[in-house]
Amino acid sequence: MNRVRVFVGCSLDGFIAGVDDDLSWLGDPSADEGEDEHGFQAFLAEVGALLMGRRTFEVVAGFGGPWPYGDRPALIATHRPLPPTEHPVQAVQGSIEELIERARSAAGERDVYLDGGVMIRQALDAGLVDELALTFVPIVLGAGIPLFAGVAQRHSFELKTERRLSKGLMTLTYRTLK
Amino acid sequence: MNRVRVFVGCSLDGFIAGVDDDLSWLGDPSADEGEDEHGFQAFLAEVGALLMGRRTFEVVAGFGGPWPYGDRPALIATHRPLPPTEHPVQAVQGSIEELIERARSAAGERDVYLDGGVMIRQALDAGLVDELALTFVPIVLGAGIPLFAGVAQRHSFELKTERRLSKGLMTLTYRTLK
Repeated sequence: MNRVRVFVGCSLDGFIAGVDDDLSWLGDPSADEGEDEHGFQAFLAEVGALLMGRRTFEVVAGFGGPWPYGDRPALIATHRPLPPTEHPVQAVQGSIEELIERARSAAGERDVYLDGGVMIRQALDAGLVDELALTFVPIVLGAGIPLFAGVAQRHSFELKTERRLSKGLMTLTYRTLK
Repeated sequence: MNRVRVFVGCSLDGFIAGVDDDLSWLGDPSADEGEDEHGFQAFLAEVGALLMGRRTFEVVAGFGGPWPYGDRPALIATHRPLPPTEHPVQAVQGSIEELIERARSAAGERDVYLDGGVMIRQALDAGLVDELALTFVPIVLGAGIPLFAGVAQRHSFELKTERRLSKGLMTLTYRTLK
């Protein structure tokens, strides 16, 4: 069965974005092109569909660069209509269980890439996250959009792999213990 | 010159203790005896004095086990008298700059071990932390005593070393960029 996976950069104090959705501290993503040092392209190759919140969608769509997810269907959890776009996006509503189920179906044999703080927390609390790849950036932000703040219960993980990247970044990949 | 160092276990969501100062998720510290897998004894050997907040002192003193810091002077930042104790502790007051200076003097040629969320955040914001050793425990707590929440500004670090321990723990050691 396909997996629900998180692949996210975060500060040492657990933020996935700074104030005003600032992502400049993550470094220049285009610098990663070609060599795939962060493993994002290798990860994406195993992804069949995406599920993300509205805010994450707007941040990604607002980058101005190319849409990073190719032609994979991207389900955007939102109650408002999406703006016209050439990207393969679709507005979805429902419980986190329903949303994950729809994303699984859309992903076919491949995995679901889950993104955005709210979606990740809801899915964690519902026991629906299989893998968590956290790339710790060597910075303390002090404020911003938290990754985990607000989860309703404790969650334990098994450390699968650790990988040191350039610029002091460190990717720790965890499997959820259920 | 001696250094100001932090050596702390934290959850993936950045807590150094759970609700009600719960530290059970850190595992059994006594299991580390002998082999010093976490490197705590090696770290402590380079420490000449400690500086910690009142709450941290009360948690450590309340463990019931042996005082973990030997005969090193321990400065406790508090405005209330300390209870009678056999440990080499001393109540101190003052600005974070004054407290660090006193701890440096007490440490002699060796380093200062800084502990407790409030003290660490104040020292970080004052630019007085040299090294940060974070041992990430593979758990999300959701609530508790935060390590970094409340810092007033961004802080950047250089990753020095990464070390995988048993049970999925991972120690990342950073040097402060000033």
